[in-house]
Amino acid sequence: MGERTESNQTAAAGRGPARGRPRDTARDRALLEATVQVLQESGYGGLTTAAVAKRAGVSTATLYRRWRSKEDLVVGTAVRWASDLGPQPDTGSLEGDLTALLRDKAETLEGPGGRLLHVLIGESAHNEALARVLDTAIIEPVRDRAATVVRRAVDRGDIPPLENAHVLADLVVGSMVSRLFLTPDAAHRATTDGPSSGEAAIAELLPFLLRALGARTDLPSSGLQPPH
Amino acid sequence: MGERTESNQTAAAGRGPARGRPRDTARDRALLEATVQVLQESGYGGLTTAAVAKRAGVSTATLYRRWRSKEDLVVGTAVRWASDLGPQPDTGSLEGDLTALLRDKAETLEGPGGRLLHVLIGESAHNEALARVLDTAIIEPVRDRAATVVRRAVDRGDIPPLENAHVLADLVVGSMVSRLFLTPDAAHRATTDGPSSGEAAIAELLPFLLRALGARTDLPSSGLQPPH
Repeated sequence: MGERTESNQTAAAGRGPARGRPRDTARDRALLEATVQVLQESGYGGLTTAAVAKRAGVSTATLYRRWRSKEDLVVGTAVRWASDLGPQPDTGSLEGDLTALLRDKAETLEGPGGRLLHVLIGESAHNEALARVLDTAIIEPVRDRAATVVRRAVDRGDIPPLENAHVLADLVVGSMVSRLFLTPDAAHRATTDGPSSGEAAIAELLPFLLRALGARTDLPSSGLQPPH
Repeated sequence: MGERTESNQTAAAGRGPARGRPRDTARDRALLEATVQVLQESGYGGLTTAAVAKRAGVSTATLYRRWRSKEDLVVGTAVRWASDLGPQPDTGSLEGDLTALLRDKAETLEGPGGRLLHVLIGESAHNEALARVLDTAIIEPVRDRAATVVRRAVDRGDIPPLENAHVLADLVVGSMVSRLFLTPDAAHRATTDGPSSGEAAIAELLPFLLRALGARTDLPSSGLQPPH
């Protein structure tokens, strides 16, 4: 886990221009990776642009041509990395589409982008600029994907139309953050064992999310009235 | 929002001994509040035990009698504050019980405990001890509550028995974290306007969570087969 595969990089670069991001260069990637490494070792408080530049093998002048400040560097790195979801396949079923979305988010959170997001969440408690970027980096990319998943399912007749379909993004991101950031066993497995703890989380979450969206599942019906 | 009400404090103090926590004293509370304030101003990296002691109006010797180190102080404060959920009412319905659980978690996350958790999540990216405490402080108290909510609903026949009922805790905590920590509008409303943005989140989340648990809601049925 962790490092993005070549195919993901290519897919991300391919989507980049459409989303207004400059195309990655080797030097940009080195700066992104160096930022993640230095953050992980030193935290946001201990990070200096000089340390990042040195780690990336570039001059601080080069760094400052791309990023105006330390804050700008960290925010930009998080947004670019964390919002790089893979391509969104149309699997033809709600379960397939939802699994792809969950898996993609799990991979993002378990990788270097996830470590950046850890740091951003921490700093956002006392840094407004960093607080504002969290939505852009974490929620917004999933909100678009979730809307597409719901629209396809409604179009196929798999589920009835939903009010507040954006809540799906909160459920997808939130449950993944809860499992991968807040639950220690899962977090530790992700860095030690090979198999992703994200996969275990997905298997458990999927039936709940399918029912939440109104899809019929094999859960036996209670045969009772709704609670009010 | 933010400050706990007197009745919450009393309720928390009343539950304290049963959960093995020492009873709050005025000095303890002053240290907890000072820790939250200093963390919010300076972040974890900038916090010193001397600054916390000074803010609380106690000597550093007094602080060290209660907490062995800065890490111990922050972890202990977070666990104590964030896990102080209110009493768990038995409302007689799944919707009522779930609303109470969501509201309680929202109040915790929007208050001082939430700001501490922000900081802990950030530091947990490069501090194992802090990473381990997140489960204790955030997930575990909700897991117990969620299990009770599900058990009552199954006993009443409101929902069929659930596998992996602990997933409800991830959905409750995760969706609240997503709405209150990661979505900027919600986070800012919580600190400026009076009315809680948690209430808005609860209203939107509730129908999804009820369906996720297998409760019948007024969502029209799709009349189709499950997606697999």
